[in-house]
Amino acid sequence: MNLWTVARRMDGMKPSALREILRITERPDVLSMAGGLPASEGFAVNELRAACEAVLCREPAAALQYGPSEGWAPLRAWVAAHLRARGARVDEGQVLITSGSQQALDLIGKVLIDPGAPVAVELPTYLGALQAFDLFEPTYQGVATDAHGPLPGALAELDPACRFLYLVPNFQNPTGRLMPHERREAVVAAARGRGLPLVEDDPYGELWCDAPPPVSLQALWPQGVMLLGSFSKTLAPGLRLGWLVAPPTLFQKLLVAKQAADLHSASFTQRVVHEVLSQGVLAQRLPALRQRYRGQRDAMHAALTRHLPPGCEWQLPAGGMFFWLRLPPGCDAQALLPAAVEAGIAFVPGAPFFVQAPDPRCLRLSFVTLSASQIDEGVRRLACILRG
Amino acid sequence: MNLWTVARRMDGMKPSALREILRITERPDVLSMAGGLPASEGFAVNELRAACEAVLCREPAAALQYGPSEGWAPLRAWVAAHLRARGARVDEGQVLITSGSQQALDLIGKVLIDPGAPVAVELPTYLGALQAFDLFEPTYQGVATDAHGPLPGALAELDPACRFLYLVPNFQNPTGRLMPHERREAVVAAARGRGLPLVEDDPYGELWCDAPPPVSLQALWPQGVMLLGSFSKTLAPGLRLGWLVAPPTLFQKLLVAKQAADLHSASFTQRVVHEVLSQGVLAQRLPALRQRYRGQRDAMHAALTRHLPPGCEWQLPAGGMFFWLRLPPGCDAQALLPAAVEAGIAFVPGAPFFVQAPDPRCLRLSFVTLSASQIDEGVRRLACILRG
Repeated sequence: MNLWTVARRMDGMKPSALREILRITERPDVLSMAGGLPASEGFAVNELRAACEAVLCREPAAALQYGPSEGWAPLRAWVAAHLRARGARVDEGQVLITSGSQQALDLIGKVLIDPGAPVAVELPTYLGALQAFDLFEPTYQGVATDAHGPLPGALAELDPACRFLYLVPNFQNPTGRLMPHERREAVVAAARGRGLPLVEDDPYGELWCDAPPPVSLQALWPQGVMLLGSFSKTLAPGLRLGWLVAPPTLFQKLLVAKQAADLHSASFTQRVVHEVLSQGVLAQRLPALRQRYRGQRDAMHAALTRHLPPGCEWQLPAGGMFFWLRLPPGCDAQALLPAAVEAGIAFVPGAPFFVQAPDPRCLRLSFVTLSASQIDEGVRRLACILRG
Repeated sequence: MNLWTVARRMDGMKPSALREILRITERPDVLSMAGGLPASEGFAVNELRAACEAVLCREPAAALQYGPSEGWAPLRAWVAAHLRARGARVDEGQVLITSGSQQALDLIGKVLIDPGAPVAVELPTYLGALQAFDLFEPTYQGVATDAHGPLPGALAELDPACRFLYLVPNFQNPTGRLMPHERREAVVAAARGRGLPLVEDDPYGELWCDAPPPVSLQALWPQGVMLLGSFSKTLAPGLRLGWLVAPPTLFQKLLVAKQAADLHSASFTQRVVHEVLSQGVLAQRLPALRQRYRGQRDAMHAALTRHLPPGCEWQLPAGGMFFWLRLPPGCDAQALLPAAVEAGIAFVPGAPFFVQAPDPRCLRLSFVTLSASQIDEGVRRLACILRG
């Protein structure tokens, strides 16, 4: 007899394939190209130390007390101003501070997904979003993509009842691709024409190598786009702070879901983050971070070019953290993983990123956690395995 | 035309009545007995400052990086040892660190509640739990209670399909009542006999005035009880850290839900909290906190005795934060609230704490946020309103 009856929504839910792979690859002898862990050398440790001290000296009672579910007002205002400076059309009243942008995905699932309702995603799409949405039991519809993102024409084939299309226009996880401005306009026009709302997830936008990305989809269609962001990739993931910008009609619903989920994000870390932001830490540190990642990206591109056998395909990502590699016909990335771990490297097979028609030849390589020489050695080992 | 279609589970979800009242009563001229805000004078500010500094000097990379969804292993071990010292039967592998215990309620709703499934709660029960569970659309069954908690006989009347009974045995919110040991044994025996699992929420157990509470229900029936706890009332709510102890069969399901909800709780604050805990901050500070709250409790009891008109009923709580006041026949606490705010005081009407048959005569008074003289003045004003 089972004492505890588990809800139907948990049927088939498994620990994230990604986090399970990360666990395997925690062995210190593994050169891991699997995880998208930001470089810890980029963390503003001294600034954060000073900010903790300043916040706890200046306003200890408020920083350690319960706070508003919307988030701390000055941090909401900072996010709104930051986004407006990049072209988005955001009032601070539309900003909900979340416990990382993963939580924003959970809140969106709660507020917008009924069991069985269709939800559209890119092919492939971010695994963590699928994991968050899965609990609300949508029926996924995959949107075909090319090197520039979703094909606007593919939106015409979607079920008109689709609750939203989830997409990552900047340096997508897992493909690394960037939607050019023209594609953004075409996708927004197609979505608007069909009354299809968009959920725009932008954790990587600040991590550009060559040039800042085009303005966000939210700037093109404010009432039809929810915009998600995070401090995880620019400041530090271990603080678990992100945000969600919602059209005013939806804000109250998301706020109710946030209250129920965890009352509010930490008063203390919200103030600490605001403290370092107001001292200009992003402007001071992002150029070095971009340069660092650009160097690692170039090293991986060079290593792939140098070592891989003919028939492998990839694009040079213009930012973010990932290369998306397509192996020669007949290869299966998932099947290669045990040999890779045996050889002391790790990657993430691409299949779990697809809600339909997975491409078994694809895999994701992160370039942000290894040095240039480690990247070269890691790719060399991968090439050896491919050559069998 | 509505561009955004909202999920059915949001029908009827409203911002928490409690948080709306708290917003009204933020006016500095209001003597608020509404909120259960811990006394900020009790926060270990200097210890937390030192802990932030120590953590960021000692292990900045790990403290600011992504971490395991289960929580940081040393903090999980601390929680397990802390609970074992109080009689619970807990292995650290059963401890999931959550973003406040409100998040534990959300995870439990996700993992255990199907739409329409019966869930049992005390009459009255904690409003925040109802808010978390509501999103998963249970059918509530109220369990009759007396001054000692749920009536064991009332469990016989519950639908055998009830997913669990949620209860707060120590200084319950809102009633302040404590379940004596004999009642715990009787409730566990009745629940075990019916195969009814229990969710035991214990945010207030450390805040006893006179004597430590009896051992937890989890100690009496480890495989049938989930136990929730929090650092919000003992250290600081603004850090948003709590825990959930689950039987091993359920742990993996809750872990998957936690990953989907926010990946993990903040690496940084988990380490900061562990740092102050390992330096013995609870043992150092809890006696003073208990003494402080005991003084405020006694002041409220004296004020109620001194000022209230005949026909009012209350019990002296043995700990926690709240008095539960029953007004004379014919009174309606909700209807009195505007006059109370007008008179510069605030309380929480009792009706929203009942899933059925609300008692309109009841209201909740917090004794932890005002000084003894403010409590006397607040209760005097309440008595004036009651006298009309």
